[in-house]
Amino acid sequence: MTMNRKELLTRFIQEVWNEGNVEAAGRYLAPRYTVRHDPGDPWHGKVLDLTEYKERLRRALAPCPDQHFELKELFADSNAVVATWFWTATHTGELAGFPPSGRTLHMSGATVYDFDGDRITGHWQIIDRLGVFQQLRQTASAEPVAG
Amino acid sequence: MTMNRKELLTRFIQEVWNEGNVEAAGRYLAPRYTVRHDPGDPWHGKVLDLTEYKERLRRALAPCPDQHFELKELFADSNAVVATWFWTATHTGELAGFPPSGRTLHMSGATVYDFDGDRITGHWQIIDRLGVFQQLRQTASAEPVAG
Repeated sequence: MTMNRKELLTRFIQEVWNEGNVEAAGRYLAPRYTVRHDPGDPWHGKVLDLTEYKERLRRALAPCPDQHFELKELFADSNAVVATWFWTATHTGELAGFPPSGRTLHMSGATVYDFDGDRITGHWQIIDRLGVFQQLRQTASAEPVAG
Repeated sequence: MTMNRKELLTRFIQEVWNEGNVEAAGRYLAPRYTVRHDPGDPWHGKVLDLTEYKERLRRALAPCPDQHFELKELFADSNAVVATWFWTATHTGELAGFPPSGRTLHMSGATVYDFDGDRITGHWQIIDRLGVFQQLRQTASAEPVAG
């Protein structure tokens, strides 16, 4: 079967993460999904079945339901597609111990998505979590948002 | 000219960054090097000539002269090679305001290296700087290293 993994990954990010369609994950993921490397992620190093992946997704979406990944560049080689991305989200739920602020958060990251055929089998990821903590700290010490 | 950019990048990281051979940078870099994205890096967004790149290198090596990048995976596509890596360093100079501790620091990151022919023209990078800050804070609040 001919497939374009960059296109598949783009659809996965848009449909599952940006639109928050948790049920659609099963159309993209392999039965077992390995979080090979993801410092600070509670699932770092774990192997997830589809039910566990959906739970990870729900928990990740909860603090910022409108979160949006903008894919910047995609690189395909061997069994992987590497994505660089920018993330924007409105902080409407508790995040890393910080109460909802209503403010817009920004982050960037780079993720290696592993494939087996046309299914995603896991990832290796670095996100700029210090950048987000700095925004959360600034927000917590600033004036409350009106309204 | 046939070239293998993964091999070139591996040699560049080993010779210039791991062995600290600042002068060797000129054999790998294009005349202008663009730090496209590197949150927290003082050269984020800047275009460097070779002299400026060497200055960046000297300042980056100063706090941890024995720092070592272990390349984990390399992905080549279009005009780039993406590297995932682990970094280990002994903290022997002031780093991010923390005095030398003599302890071993660990970090991981992912870097897109841009090429023009066989020359590196810049990078887009995310490093887990929060992980390093956490280690530096733990160290600063712990017992001094004996000796």
